[in-house]
Amino acid sequence: MNRKELVEYFLRIRKCSEDICKPLANEDYVPQPIMDVSPPKWHLAHVSWFFETVLLKVYNPQYQPYHPQYGFIFNSYYESFGKRVERPTRGTLSRPTVQEVMAYRSAINQDMCELIETLPEESWETFHDLVVLGLNHEQQHQELLLTDIKYIYSHNPLQPAYLITGQSKSVVSSISRFLEFEGGVYEIGHPGNEFGFDNEMPSHKVYLNDFKIQNRLVTNREYLEFIEDQGYQSFEYWLSDGWTLLETEGWNSPLFWEQIDGKWFEFTLAGLQPVELDAPVCHVSYYEAEAFAEWTGKRLPTEPEWEIAVQQSKVFPNQGNFMDSGFFQPQPLSEEDTGQSLMHQAFGDVWEWTGSAYLPYPGYRRQKGALGEYNSKFMINQMVLKGGSCATPQDHIRTTYRNFFQPDKRWQFMGLRLAETV
Amino acid sequence: MNRKELVEYFLRIRKCSEDICKPLANEDYVPQPIMDVSPPKWHLAHVSWFFETVLLKVYNPQYQPYHPQYGFIFNSYYESFGKRVERPTRGTLSRPTVQEVMAYRSAINQDMCELIETLPEESWETFHDLVVLGLNHEQQHQELLLTDIKYIYSHNPLQPAYLITGQSKSVVSSISRFLEFEGGVYEIGHPGNEFGFDNEMPSHKVYLNDFKIQNRLVTNREYLEFIEDQGYQSFEYWLSDGWTLLETEGWNSPLFWEQIDGKWFEFTLAGLQPVELDAPVCHVSYYEAEAFAEWTGKRLPTEPEWEIAVQQSKVFPNQGNFMDSGFFQPQPLSEEDTGQSLMHQAFGDVWEWTGSAYLPYPGYRRQKGALGEYNSKFMINQMVLKGGSCATPQDHIRTTYRNFFQPDKRWQFMGLRLAETV
Amino acid sequence: MNRKELVEYFLRIRKCSEDICKPLANEDYVPQPIMDVSPPKWHLAHVSWFFETVLLKVYNPQYQPYHPQYGFIFNSYYESFGKRVERPTRGTLSRPTVQEVMAYRSAINQDMCELIETLPEESWETFHDLVVLGLNHEQQHQELLLTDIKYIYSHNPLQPAYLITGQSKSVVSSISRFLEFEGGVYEIGHPGNEFGFDNEMPSHKVYLNDFKIQNRLVTNREYLEFIEDQGYQSFEYWLSDGWTLLETEGWNSPLFWEQIDGKWFEFTLAGLQPVELDAPVCHVSYYEAEAFAEWTGKRLPTEPEWEIAVQQSKVFPNQGNFMDSGFFQPQPLSEEDTGQSLMHQAFGDVWEWTGSAYLPYPGYRRQKGALGEYNSKFMINQMVLKGGSCATPQDHIRTTYRNFFQPDKRWQFMGLRLAETV
Amino acid sequence: MNRKELVEYFLRIRKCSEDICKPLANEDYVPQPIMDVSPPKWHLAHVSWFFETVLLKVYNPQYQPYHPQYGFIFNSYYESFGKRVERPTRGTLSRPTVQEVMAYRSAINQDMCELIETLPEESWETFHDLVVLGLNHEQQHQELLLTDIKYIYSHNPLQPAYLITGQSKSVVSSISRFLEFEGGVYEIGHPGNEFGFDNEMPSHKVYLNDFKIQNRLVTNREYLEFIEDQGYQSFEYWLSDGWTLLETEGWNSPLFWEQIDGKWFEFTLAGLQPVELDAPVCHVSYYEAEAFAEWTGKRLPTEPEWEIAVQQSKVFPNQGNFMDSGFFQPQPLSEEDTGQSLMHQAFGDVWEWTGSAYLPYPGYRRQKGALGEYNSKFMINQMVLKGGSCATPQDHIRTTYRNFFQPDKRWQFMGLRLAETV
Repeated sequence: MNRKELVEYFLRIRKCSEDICKPLANEDYVPQPIMDVSPPKWHLAHVSWFFETVLLKVYNPQYQPYHPQYGFIFNSYYESFGKRVERPTRGTLSRPTVQEVMAYRSAINQDMCELIETLPEESWETFHDLVVLGLNHEQQHQELLLTDIKYIYSHNPLQPAYLITGQSKSVVSSISRFLEFEGGVYEIGHPGNEFGFDNEMPSHKVYLNDFKIQNRLVTNREYLEFIEDQGYQSFEYWLSDGWTLLETEGWNSPLFWEQIDGKWFEFTLAGLQPVELDAPVCHVSYYEAEAFAEWTGKRLPTEPEWEIAVQQSKVFPNQGNFMDSGFFQPQPLSEEDTGQSLMHQAFGDVWEWTGSAYLPYPGYRRQKGALGEYNSKFMINQMVLKGGSCATPQDHIRTTYRNFFQPDKRWQFMGLRLAETV
Repeated sequence: MNRKELVEYFLRIRKCSEDICKPLANEDYVPQPIMDVSPPKWHLAHVSWFFETVLLKVYNPQYQPYHPQYGFIFNSYYESFGKRVERPTRGTLSRPTVQEVMAYRSAINQDMCELIETLPEESWETFHDLVVLGLNHEQQHQELLLTDIKYIYSHNPLQPAYLITGQSKSVVSSISRFLEFEGGVYEIGHPGNEFGFDNEMPSHKVYLNDFKIQNRLVTNREYLEFIEDQGYQSFEYWLSDGWTLLETEGWNSPLFWEQIDGKWFEFTLAGLQPVELDAPVCHVSYYEAEAFAEWTGKRLPTEPEWEIAVQQSKVFPNQGNFMDSGFFQPQPLSEEDTGQSLMHQAFGDVWEWTGSAYLPYPGYRRQKGALGEYNSKFMINQMVLKGGSCATPQDHIRTTYRNFFQPDKRWQFMGLRLAETV
Repeated sequence: MNRKELVEYFLRIRKCSEDICKPLANEDYVPQPIMDVSPPKWHLAHVSWFFETVLLKVYNPQYQPYHPQYGFIFNSYYESFGKRVERPTRGTLSRPTVQEVMAYRSAINQDMCELIETLPEESWETFHDLVVLGLNHEQQHQELLLTDIKYIYSHNPLQPAYLITGQSKSVVSSISRFLEFEGGVYEIGHPGNEFGFDNEMPSHKVYLNDFKIQNRLVTNREYLEFIEDQGYQSFEYWLSDGWTLLETEGWNSPLFWEQIDGKWFEFTLAGLQPVELDAPVCHVSYYEAEAFAEWTGKRLPTEPEWEIAVQQSKVFPNQGNFMDSGFFQPQPLSEEDTGQSLMHQAFGDVWEWTGSAYLPYPGYRRQKGALGEYNSKFMINQMVLKGGSCATPQDHIRTTYRNFFQPDKRWQFMGLRLAETV
Repeated sequence: MNRKELVEYFLRIRKCSEDICKPLANEDYVPQPIMDVSPPKWHLAHVSWFFETVLLKVYNPQYQPYHPQYGFIFNSYYESFGKRVERPTRGTLSRPTVQEVMAYRSAINQDMCELIETLPEESWETFHDLVVLGLNHEQQHQELLLTDIKYIYSHNPLQPAYLITGQSKSVVSSISRFLEFEGGVYEIGHPGNEFGFDNEMPSHKVYLNDFKIQNRLVTNREYLEFIEDQGYQSFEYWLSDGWTLLETEGWNSPLFWEQIDGKWFEFTLAGLQPVELDAPVCHVSYYEAEAFAEWTGKRLPTEPEWEIAVQQSKVFPNQGNFMDSGFFQPQPLSEEDTGQSLMHQAFGDVWEWTGSAYLPYPGYRRQKGALGEYNSKFMINQMVLKGGSCATPQDHIRTTYRNFFQPDKRWQFMGLRLAETV
């Protein structure tokens, strides 16, 4: 991108974060009902702090910190940048106010645009790449804004709605089929030609056995059968850690589900709604996804299987139910989707749990400095998810994208498709 | 009070709560940094819920609940009124918003004024007493509003100020003297002639040995000597539970104190200020008050001793440094105070820890119904404090008033004076 | 006592501790199922450590510590004697073995007897008093040995029995009566003429209102009525802290009770036994005792009331169901007990919860040095119990004796009698 | 194996468990200092319970349970076999005594031998395989017995020794070399021809890039350089979860290490010993192993790399420092070991952390019934370790063996060797 394009890109992404927050009441920006969820105003400020810390302070020799305490308040987890507010206390801070955070955003925007336009040529390339990283970082937080707002609203006894529910397309109740792929040596991972996170690289060869993979996501209808077959009461389908968690937390359905007079409802960003049976199941943890798969006699796909199936099916992330479509809720397959034997819903709707641990690719090296803390220090105790969700910006996702969460997490838009070894 | 007087009294007290919150930013109403502290908007709504629940629902047969969920959200601890939001999660609720809470207050005010004016005569007496109880309840929460705002601000890295610091009177560094009282049978407690809480009653006889009691509060100057004499490093002055807490929490000074370059500062509602040496020490727990007393070779007064000393000294709560004076900080003795040998600072400034456990008076009976939960179910594991503080409304306090907190609490304006057995 | 008498007294008490442990398997000496309970071998060694530390090391200039680490392992809570094994980990130590502990006891016995016989005259008096204190301390641990063994056995799925159940006397189902006492100024506390703990002193005057007190302990039959009247399901009888605990722990009966096929059993040192309806209720916390009293419309006696009622009734601790009787279980009143209108069961059977907090008596001063840690540092958050139990050695108890526990504790032999204000 | 061989094998393995416990005092069998560690008597009984439950109860129609409660007490984690003593409370049970456990073992031995000899032919094959499984299970607990005894002793202030330290071979301080292997498609996993755990199967193809692997284990000398280079103070080498743990626990060296007057010692089963610089580093968690590797600029080998390097180097588990050698401590390379360029110390000494998560192999299916709980329900949140340790029975280990632990665990004999991508 040239300077003008970068400024436009920058301002477009930055504005999107603020647009997401438009429906919020001032008070909605403040609380943190669980540790995983951050206050919306924290997200808005943290992504600005990232630009300030990684770019303005480094590339603008005259730059004066916007506020002496913001580095402490809005650093997320970077040891490289020193001490910070402890994560569980983010929701205990009333100040800076929303207005002050917005002023901070404005100032950073202005300083960044100026810097993009005036930076000496010799620093441009690295700088450019870091700005792009910062904007991808902000897009990640756009997804988190939506999932965290959803949690904050769902957790409130008044259960406010974020939006009027959108109308989805005409629905078909499609029988799932399994696409078969031949084993052999394949190549996965990001080739490095354009933007990608370091954890997607290097691209490398893997050996796959013959496998089959489901041509669409698992639906609420299918998941409900698992529930009704006592899936949540039958230890034999569950990993030990998952079963312990289920017992401790009293789990008996996906997050946000509630049974009222024998009928299942789920809390959505459009408020409480009847569970749409043909929509993909969502807000299940890895434990639930894995138990469901075990119950079907199948399994989750591995990350390489998923990636190869997408490659081979020539499915691209240029369409799907993303943040941009404004549903903020996974959608059923529509008639027009179902004609072909492709990997439907590979992109958008829900992040798909894979059976692969989040570990470094062969040849991966942790970066020096703060960026070494961006992805690599989390390479333990997490599982990989693929494909983006209905809260992911469309231009943020790729086939090689590796999302990762601990297996107990389920407040993100997370679901699954099945696979099996032939 | 007649109906008109009661309406005036009602509106005056109600307005005071809102006035206290005037300096707040909207976001300041939301957080709950520790379990003890409630969000300001919760306080404002809870006191309204009290009137709605105890009066409107009972005395107005046509009354419709303002909102079906507010009973759940704003019930504090009354089992009699059913389930409620769990206390530690009060700060996780963004809704109702401040504006909605204010609308709730308005509606309750209007309904209450109407009811006061129209209530059939036969219910008047009980009704009147419950309104007065509700207003005393609201005054208790006015004090909590101030202490909770102080905690919320102190806890924020930006340390905002609630007010511009007031100017206090000309200060004298007064040597404390001990007033001596003769032993014998005395009467303490509330005679029941006018408003008092049930826990102050019935008045009853006690036997006291000869005792001496300090004529003023312990000052920061005196407490600093304890700190500098390694008081916080010397187990021999401390109760076992207190010493364990001190070690766990790393206590080495009163709450809100901070040493910067060898000089002590304290966070006040006017922001961080140098410790005023002649002001009463404040924000000490019972453990600290008791350890300090042990270090001096003296002890805390018992509740009966304090009450008799006040009675005998003919000191009345009609003056002192209360909420009404607007300092919101304990003040040093001024020259005009010190001429006489009275119990200075008995009222206002700081609640004084006594060496008496909060237990029922002889002949006390737990009330039936919800009011039985107001005071009596807390009669265990707490110590009595007397005299009110700089955050107590002046017309709320009495000699017989029994405040009570667990011995580890120190976020209220709490201090001490010494006593000894002759 | 002269030297010979003291040696005899010393050896008699010391032997008693070992006799208590005779029925134990070697493995029974090791575990600590909950923090409150200490391993029997820890008790046996700790009481010896007390003699070693407070007497041998101080009064025998040639004394060499028995083992360099025993001071660390067997110090209970004395900051004055330095660091120690943290309480919750006492049960994680397999060594020293029981045999090694017994050898330690023997060595201490021999050294102590020698010292008693050879100590220079000028130190005798203080020394003598400290030996007596050490033996009273050992007697306190004899009671703890029994209650801790009971807990260890009850907690084991195999529920072993410590003894063959003894035969109790012929039982009468006695209707309780209330003895009435006139109010006025009375004197309570220990006059200091013979051995007593510092917390019983000084004797001092109190004022009592007219009161009535039950002439015997509350029975299982009476307590069962409370259970059957939904006592454990009715918040209105309970202190708030107690109700929270009840809900958290799922309490629905006294500790050690179990309902099998609709019939109540209790675990005793003679194994699981049907609840004896006419025996005093036992293993109830203060919360349960207080809730029971509230349910009856009465209350617990205060410590002064209990003490005055015993004084006035001329009841003495020279008989009762103590450790010496070998039942290790509270016993019903027998026919021969019931003829008179005295305070039955005031001594032995169960410690009686009073409504008085464990706080210092007027004029009490914390002792300097380690003995200041014996009783006084616990004067907070505990309630007073009176009269000893079926696990208390008969010659250990007095009218003025003040036992104290936190209100949630119930693994000791604890029960109650009722009182009321006239 | 035929019946006679199986009886001999059975008795040999069973006796070995008891031999391991010979040096213990009776009390050493009881405690559980941390949740991971089980009391030795629990291990001895649990492995017997396995034979009773999986074989005697199933294959002997006349079999009567040895004790009605032992199923409850000695079930480890099998939901299939119902409720059980909660893991953290194993150390709170004094009964059954050691003697009773030994009697249980005897009875099971006798019943099992009888059953082996008399079982109808048609059930023989499955029965035989389950007996072999049960014996491998017992061998796993033999290793745990040693590591748990080590922990129990280390944790005791008296630090008893389990054995007199053995004499190790003449030591060489060998410079490590890296063996290089060519990438390509390889086959790993257990072919299923003889005994193996289900998690090692099926054998399957993997693709490996070119890689190098260290020809011996990382030594204490090398690890000490990491410590001295502030490895434990430098977040940049650590995974985020590991760094948090390090800070919480105050880790600054491997488990059991202690610095005395500037010199490092480690607690061994022969008591406290100076750290042997040329011995393999041991008792490091995955976090420490990974951070060490990061510090060197290299990485841990993956499971397939380790397995292929062993295959290709033609190294077999028929020699090495196993339980059988009686050192119970990893040993330095001796002169005779170092001549060749093989994978030294691949078997025995320490389990080697790999960079591979413990997940199912392609084509693996969870077994039905209780055996499905043996290995597969733990396939989450754990990392694979290879090669056995100085506490592993020599005839228990294989190249394909997959041990697995959470990344924070370090009380097993765990160490590492390095690898790198070419």
